Amino acid sequence: MDYVYGPGRNHLFVPGPVNIPEQVIRAMNRNNEDYRSPAVPALTKTLLEDVKKIFKTTSGTPFLIPTTGTGAWESALTNTLSPGDRIVSFLIGQFSLLWIDQQQRLNFNVDVVESEWGRGADLDILASKIAQDKDHAIKAICIVHNETATGVTNNLATVRKILDQYQHPALFLVDGVSSICALDFRMDEWGIDVALTGSQKALSLPTGLGILCASPKALEATKSAKSVRVFFDWNDYLKFYKLGTYWPYTPSIQLLYGLRAALDLVFEEGLDNVIARHARLGKATRLAVEAWGLKNCTQSEEWVSDTVTAIMVPSYIDSAEIVRRAWKRYNLSLGLGLNKVAGKVFRIGHLGNLNELQLLGCLAGVELVLRDVGYPVKLGSGVAAASAYFQNSTPLISSRI
Amino acid sequence: MDYVYGPGRNHLFVPGPVNIPEQVIRAMNRNNEDYRSPAVPALTKTLLEDVKKIFKTTSGTPFLIPTTGTGAWESALTNTLSPGDRIVSFLIGQFSLLWIDQQQRLNFNVDVVESEWGRGADLDILASKIAQDKDHAIKAICIVHNETATGVTNNLATVRKILDQYQHPALFLVDGVSSICALDFRMDEWGIDVALTGSQKALSLPTGLGILCASPKALEATKSAKSVRVFFDWNDYLKFYKLGTYWPYTPSIQLLYGLRAALDLVFEEGLDNVIARHARLGKATRLAVEAWGLKNCTQSEEWVSDTVTAIMVPSYIDSAEIVRRAWKRYNLSLGLGLNKVAGKVFRIGHLGNLNELQLLGCLAGVELVLRDVGYPVKLGSGVAAASAYFQNSTPLISSRI
Amino acid sequence: MDYVYGPGRNHLFVPGPVNIPEQVIRAMNRNNEDYRSPAVPALTKTLLEDVKKIFKTTSGTPFLIPTTGTGAWESALTNTLSPGDRIVSFLIGQFSLLWIDQQQRLNFNVDVVESEWGRGADLDILASKIAQDKDHAIKAICIVHNETATGVTNNLATVRKILDQYQHPALFLVDGVSSICALDFRMDEWGIDVALTGSQKALSLPTGLGILCASPKALEATKSAKSVRVFFDWNDYLKFYKLGTYWPYTPSIQLLYGLRAALDLVFEEGLDNVIARHARLGKATRLAVEAWGLKNCTQSEEWVSDTVTAIMVPSYIDSAEIVRRAWKRYNLSLGLGLNKVAGKVFRIGHLGNLNELQLLGCLAGVELVLRDVGYPVKLGSGVAAASAYFQNSTPLISSRI
Amino acid sequence: MDYVYGPGRNHLFVPGPVNIPEQVIRAMNRNNEDYRSPAVPALTKTLLEDVKKIFKTTSGTPFLIPTTGTGAWESALTNTLSPGDRIVSFLIGQFSLLWIDQQQRLNFNVDVVESEWGRGADLDILASKIAQDKDHAIKAICIVHNETATGVTNNLATVRKILDQYQHPALFLVDGVSSICALDFRMDEWGIDVALTGSQKALSLPTGLGILCASPKALEATKSAKSVRVFFDWNDYLKFYKLGTYWPYTPSIQLLYGLRAALDLVFEEGLDNVIARHARLGKATRLAVEAWGLKNCTQSEEWVSDTVTAIMVPSYIDSAEIVRRAWKRYNLSLGLGLNKVAGKVFRIGHLGNLNELQLLGCLAGVELVLRDVGYPVKLGSGVAAASAYFQNSTPLISSRI
Repeated sequence: MDYVYGPGRNHLFVPGPVNIPEQVIRAMNRNNEDYRSPAVPALTKTLLEDVKKIFKTTSGTPFLIPTTGTGAWESALTNTLSPGDRIVSFLIGQFSLLWIDQQQRLNFNVDVVESEWGRGADLDILASKIAQDKDHAIKAICIVHNETATGVTNNLATVRKILDQYQHPALFLVDGVSSICALDFRMDEWGIDVALTGSQKALSLPTGLGILCASPKALEATKSAKSVRVFFDWNDYLKFYKLGTYWPYTPSIQLLYGLRAALDLVFEEGLDNVIARHARLGKATRLAVEAWGLKNCTQSEEWVSDTVTAIMVPSYIDSAEIVRRAWKRYNLSLGLGLNKVAGKVFRIGHLGNLNELQLLGCLAGVELVLRDVGYPVKLGSGVAAASAYFQNSTPLISSRI
Repeated sequence: MDYVYGPGRNHLFVPGPVNIPEQVIRAMNRNNEDYRSPAVPALTKTLLEDVKKIFKTTSGTPFLIPTTGTGAWESALTNTLSPGDRIVSFLIGQFSLLWIDQQQRLNFNVDVVESEWGRGADLDILASKIAQDKDHAIKAICIVHNETATGVTNNLATVRKILDQYQHPALFLVDGVSSICALDFRMDEWGIDVALTGSQKALSLPTGLGILCASPKALEATKSAKSVRVFFDWNDYLKFYKLGTYWPYTPSIQLLYGLRAALDLVFEEGLDNVIARHARLGKATRLAVEAWGLKNCTQSEEWVSDTVTAIMVPSYIDSAEIVRRAWKRYNLSLGLGLNKVAGKVFRIGHLGNLNELQLLGCLAGVELVLRDVGYPVKLGSGVAAASAYFQNSTPLISSRI
Repeated sequence: MDYVYGPGRNHLFVPGPVNIPEQVIRAMNRNNEDYRSPAVPALTKTLLEDVKKIFKTTSGTPFLIPTTGTGAWESALTNTLSPGDRIVSFLIGQFSLLWIDQQQRLNFNVDVVESEWGRGADLDILASKIAQDKDHAIKAICIVHNETATGVTNNLATVRKILDQYQHPALFLVDGVSSICALDFRMDEWGIDVALTGSQKALSLPTGLGILCASPKALEATKSAKSVRVFFDWNDYLKFYKLGTYWPYTPSIQLLYGLRAALDLVFEEGLDNVIARHARLGKATRLAVEAWGLKNCTQSEEWVSDTVTAIMVPSYIDSAEIVRRAWKRYNLSLGLGLNKVAGKVFRIGHLGNLNELQLLGCLAGVELVLRDVGYPVKLGSGVAAASAYFQNSTPLISSRI
Repeated sequence: MDYVYGPGRNHLFVPGPVNIPEQVIRAMNRNNEDYRSPAVPALTKTLLEDVKKIFKTTSGTPFLIPTTGTGAWESALTNTLSPGDRIVSFLIGQFSLLWIDQQQRLNFNVDVVESEWGRGADLDILASKIAQDKDHAIKAICIVHNETATGVTNNLATVRKILDQYQHPALFLVDGVSSICALDFRMDEWGIDVALTGSQKALSLPTGLGILCASPKALEATKSAKSVRVFFDWNDYLKFYKLGTYWPYTPSIQLLYGLRAALDLVFEEGLDNVIARHARLGKATRLAVEAWGLKNCTQSEEWVSDTVTAIMVPSYIDSAEIVRRAWKRYNLSLGLGLNKVAGKVFRIGHLGNLNELQLLGCLAGVELVLRDVGYPVKLGSGVAAASAYFQNSTPLISSRI
């Protein structure tokens, strides 16, 4: 069953699915259980309460849906909007593209604001659209917080500011798939109406849970939302929340216990420390890229991402060959360039339960691969740049002081 | 994290999620992997090929969707039908009711054929509807093969016969959630267009995979099906099948390896032996019920189910109390009576990776609980009846001869 | 790697190794760790403290030795005695025989007190030997608390009483392999000098830890004990206890975390409840044996064992065939008759993390096997007898009330 | 239960216990089994046959003893020698010291040949002793193949040559704890009489198996060996080998399945490739040490070890502080300096299931720690030196070509 065994540990640096900590693997190592016994609701109650903390919301209502990020998107849209509704959506890379594709196939009237790949959402255009939309035809703003294809983080606070400035009632829907629990994210403070992530990203679980929080306004919107939905219908969940049994259909027992363990690890480290760790890993990666003389796909410092770095390669190199070779020779899994940047970028995911030395091992591996494919990087240069930064920024592990 | 620890093993006899064999738990005990590496497609290819065998189809196209049975239902309907389409659907218990509810919310024109709970689908009515439907307004027949709430197995061969008799082109959509890989199921022979199950049932995995097979006719129907779908859209899968990368979005690596192990176990035992084992477990359970002087909710032998038995309790007993007490005193998980039969029946699930002595332990437990709640069962009577049957029917374990 | 796969769960009823609870399997599911980091001593400290509780000692010094029960025996003897020392030892079955064999090979002068297999240690003879031993030539009394081969539990309190009566200073060494953490065991109260068990018995772990406690008197004896020992030398442990690093050589990290989990489960249930549960399982088994019309190998009620029952079969049956057939047809693992009782008895182990319905499943299986081999047992009779007892004696699971 | 949680993976670079591959962790993730069923002997048979391959012996007899390396030592000595026997033993570091301590406590007449720590066994002295020993008073040569405390590999072929030159019949006993399955080791070719290792070293399992092979001459020696032994007595094993049940006492089922998986991985990679990989990791580590301007504790190239490198630190640095800080700040586990070299060296273990990027991550971490403690290493320098070597020497992963 190991089609492709290599000695030693796989170095998993795709931007999802990410490394699962042993504590979570252990928690999931179990038989099924009757989800209608008192045990599962008792567990679920703690999960729903605690998952809100990683969204930084107290007023939101959480949903743990047995699906992927794509399903979570669909859930966010269909529960709050009606076919034909005008929404503003930002196209800045492959994942925002896919979400927009979904929005269009769900029959919304999508007003696409496109940026060059490598740039963030054009919020000036948003401001002008909002300013002009006196009669509030725009029903929702859809934005990917962190575009995983290009390593671009958008400024959500500014979106809120724009909406507030014009007292515009549009719903604010945010894909936080590669940001929540890794980047600074403040659902309540930023007035986000639906935020969502997937279990296999910063939470460091297997794929299988779409995790959403809905603001009171989003819940109110469900009453008039005419999009057809059944599996993804929040009302079915809300009905079972009231009954105290929580689940309209069978959840994965293993993922529930896994989520419990994952949240426990986040709280043990401290959410703000988790975010600071990601900032450290992101900065160190960018310093390595610079030391290698390569360009970050992200065109400006204001958008750099602390969870994934997309790295431009010279035109004489096929970035896909970097990914292939990393896997074939060094047991290193890197992210491909997707769509418009296929062949042009490769990506390092640095999110989830990950530490400094793991990243340095990855960077050392990237240096080897770069030379393998003909780019004359100085061995050790990226590692040195990242290390110098780590030396000054890495705290002692708090449980070991 | 163990809210409700009890010594010894939990005796899990709800009709899903069911016991996971150690081999499958082991196979899933792993870190995430890059699903875009060559390893995951190589694995997926074997899964898609092998999963068809448990549906007994060679012409069908399989889909492994990260969802539950409810999602699999939605996938079957939305990919093949358009809003307003007339479908015939049979209401015989809670799960057929839920599917009908979904069909109605998806805006199909559902022609509900209701039977008393405990009886099978009324196929005479189907025959008459089909006979009358000269202009083929009926686009699909939707039927639950095994109604898990009442322990009723419908006769799919007869459905096919009726359609063939009138050369009616309606699609034949089958919920095989509690039947596939446990009961006799023949997708190709019975001309089923979409059949589906969930990973947590007879395949004995965690929840998380909706597993479907679509006939060529069903695939053809996707082209004209106007139901809105994105997450559940088969075409997205088919596109990636052609690319050889297989996954339109992130699968659960763990469930893929788990499914590989689960299928290996089924093939090692032999699918027909698996089905024979379920027949043995079902028959033994019914003999115990008879010995206890209780009635099977299933009203006639023609519909008895070999995966779940719903047992009627005398009116002076609340069946929910049986379930509660089984769990509280004997670490035994039984199924509740649902909806119309709430309080009136309790259920024993006897499907998945389960053997004779596990069932006898359960039956002994049920006897204890029955007495606990005031029903004067003779201790050992059900066990003796089931054992007598096992004595004559249980083969030697083939690997141990 | 599954040479002998059978569907469903293996029913493990040998008297060791026993079923491991999921909580313990989970705790052991981990990578190695540096045992010289601060984490392992911190863990070890809690284990040494807590393991004393299952011996009911406060004054004893515990040792966790990477070995089996056989090694634990050797450790007990060589640390406290010198070659040529006279010891009194009781031969009542295969395990006491093996210990005596070891004692002789270690060059002690073993005064063997033999009983018929099925009877307990002859403590009258002990009393007379002690009475006569005015000059205290007897250096130690070695006794197996529970003889696993015959299901005989010796009376340790009486041994103590005899020694006290004559103020005899002999060391009191006890094999508690199949008793500690299952039967009533009181190291301090009974003045036991060395008591020992193995991890794979009532503690429900894998094999690999010999667990001992030594009284202050036993520790004092190490100073004059001339038996050659290195690997098993307690002084090497004591040296590292003082250093606070605890381990003279590499421990199994997995077993340490497993032991932590196992102890946690014992304390959560309550040690006295654990012992009461074993009493319940033992009594129920004996009632089943009686109902089958078979004889317990244990010849008198005073010696019956609550952890293992050895059952005599009629002379026309080979008990080994029962064990073989149980495994081949019902996935049931029973214990063979050993040595003098080979072919004449088979054994049911009912110790460790086990509950009532598991045992009833086993008893139902034994009934089937008995009929398979030609013994005309009435199906359900043993189950009924055991169930009737359970009905009156089984408490609600405390965490579920 | 995680006293000292840190985010991300622990970087385990002590020279044992080492990282366990996921495949082995999975194989061990299981309940106990009856070791007297036909399954366990069938498994054991394959293990005994296959374990010989990693010793490169066809004539040897293997023993899998539930113990540690210390126990394996004792087993090797007591089965082949008698108290008072003269043996030549080499003191070159902490582990050879401990073995000599054991030899003395077992009452052998140990002729200790001491070298400065950091140098190999003085084989010239051996040659002269052998030359003078005309009457063959020397019964055994005991040598540690790879001294784990100093990173020194002795030349076993030369030992054999010396014995052959003088046709000396002394037994040749080898501690291969940190060499077998990692370094070039040829039991038959080098005429080794007893070779031994522990499961937690290059085989990458948990602690718990002492693995030995004995030559026919060693087995012959057991007949006259008068050392007292029971638990470690090979004859008890041989008796059960003949019976085909293999185990004189209870083995760890988990370790047996784990060993099966570990051997499968070794054979899949190819033993010679495993050895070449260790050579690569060792060389790269030494190049890094050189680049850092530090000295290898090993004083000459002829003795360098490919499984562990002991690194001297300047006198103004306490090497224990390096180990402490690595763990506290970077989740990196390094080996302490022991005994004579305490405070003066720290150690990097690079053995077992480990790959190039894992080592580079470790080296990057060591650079950080060195600077933390005040040694002015140039960041990236060691990584660069090791990487340059890897670039030229690392093959593609054979299963991925």
